[in-house]
Amino acid sequence: MSDSNSSFRERLERSCQDKQSRVVVGLDPRYDQLPEELRRLQPAEAIIAFNRALIDALADVCVAVKPQAAFYELWGAAGFEALRLTVEHARSRGLVTIVDAKRNDIGSTAEAYAHAFLAPDGPMKADALTVNGYLGGDGIQPFLEAARPHGGGVFVLVKTSNSSSGELQDRTLSSGETVFEAMARLVDRWDCEAVVGGTWPEQAQRARALMPRATILVPGYGAQGASAEDCLPNFRNDGTGAVVNNARGIIFAQPWPDGPRRAAETMRDELNRALQHS
Amino acid sequence: MSDSNSSFRERLERSCQDKQSRVVVGLDPRYDQLPEELRRLQPAEAIIAFNRALIDALADVCVAVKPQAAFYELWGAAGFEALRLTVEHARSRGLVTIVDAKRNDIGSTAEAYAHAFLAPDGPMKADALTVNGYLGGDGIQPFLEAARPHGGGVFVLVKTSNSSSGELQDRTLSSGETVFEAMARLVDRWDCEAVVGGTWPEQAQRARALMPRATILVPGYGAQGASAEDCLPNFRNDGTGAVVNNARGIIFAQPWPDGPRRAAETMRDELNRALQHS
Repeated sequence: MSDSNSSFRERLERSCQDKQSRVVVGLDPRYDQLPEELRRLQPAEAIIAFNRALIDALADVCVAVKPQAAFYELWGAAGFEALRLTVEHARSRGLVTIVDAKRNDIGSTAEAYAHAFLAPDGPMKADALTVNGYLGGDGIQPFLEAARPHGGGVFVLVKTSNSSSGELQDRTLSSGETVFEAMARLVDRWDCEAVVGGTWPEQAQRARALMPRATILVPGYGAQGASAEDCLPNFRNDGTGAVVNNARGIIFAQPWPDGPRRAAETMRDELNRALQHS
Repeated sequence: MSDSNSSFRERLERSCQDKQSRVVVGLDPRYDQLPEELRRLQPAEAIIAFNRALIDALADVCVAVKPQAAFYELWGAAGFEALRLTVEHARSRGLVTIVDAKRNDIGSTAEAYAHAFLAPDGPMKADALTVNGYLGGDGIQPFLEAARPHGGGVFVLVKTSNSSSGELQDRTLSSGETVFEAMARLVDRWDCEAVVGGTWPEQAQRARALMPRATILVPGYGAQGASAEDCLPNFRNDGTGAVVNNARGIIFAQPWPDGPRRAAETMRDELNRALQHS
């Protein structure tokens, strides 16, 4: 039993050291872009086959996979089962599994989500989950309580990678800080992990300073425009404390099935080079 | 095709007038609290049987049902299918279906969620969905685009009912407004619907003024402590513009199966009485 996120952080960091990699592979199986040979199968079956092949090909190049729940829910119950099987397969290959579901609700309902995604006797059994902190601490605590005893983690959205994230997140509070900085302070108080888009290097610097303990999950690399250098402010000075996600740029890299591994290796090397020169 | 939420609003309002009711029944089937006779079934089967019986008993007393996705996802793929069948049955009984899933993501992923829950050719086919606006407009637009052409609605969280909602939502911006008021302004700009907890009557008054067009979904009545009077500030002066959710206080009212109908009628009458005296 653990009352902090330290065991999750240590496990992820150890995996980064062992593999010399900071790469998280986003498993966002947009059906139209799946290899033609797989699109002969039923959608949920095609997704499972695609993800299993990706996981097998990438298990020693990446430290974690981050399936995006939306692309599974799109296929109803069969898709939800495809997500479960994806998590199961990734875990069996020693990967950290981060379900990107951005769940959020009031306390008693958050307990149900937490059990669904993070409990060892729940249906999903993921290592970690992304959540949205707009509801405040009593909506986050149930996730932490479900995750921590089993070495799991909870990633709270701080500054998201999308172009209109500033509409609320960059608003200035009367304290002089922005909304996302207030969220970063809450993340530090809750002692959990954070999501900060790679597309916002300046904001990342401020978020990193406010959350010294947190591991930061960095989306936005590649298709969304962030370079390895853009992601650097999310790391600590010693090169720890962050992992970087890429979905489309890896999983749909041509040609199938060798493209994804090559793309993941290239990303791993670019991040390592940038970290060495920082 | 409609480019605003007016057709959704009109449909919900007409149903309120026809039934002289403002009641939304929260279908949150906490398994431990299901009637003993149903707990002999598999959990997902028990949930479907419970919800169908509730919907049949309550269809003329309430205007909408609001299944909370967490209590279905808790049972994995079978639970997701139970949610789909619940929505299907409620629609067949003429009820507006609001899936309370608080989804949120960046634009291209929000499209997938929107299709999953709101598209006529998606798996869920709900009339409306709750979403979290922390990511800003490009995370909301895809939901509106999926909902509007079919008379559907999108409810954005403005001020949530839970006790720690103020940790972020009540923070004051440099403009003098709070974070939830900034969100209310965004909701008005996006021309969508809103969620405002019945537990915060003062904040509701301000939110109502900032979102003159929105229909407000009011959770927090009953078990969470809000009275009919507490919910009033969410209504317009003419008594339109809001519907009030109650889950536990209705669906687990004893004895089964007559308790829920009696509880829903009592709530309907209490709301109508409060509205007449305001």
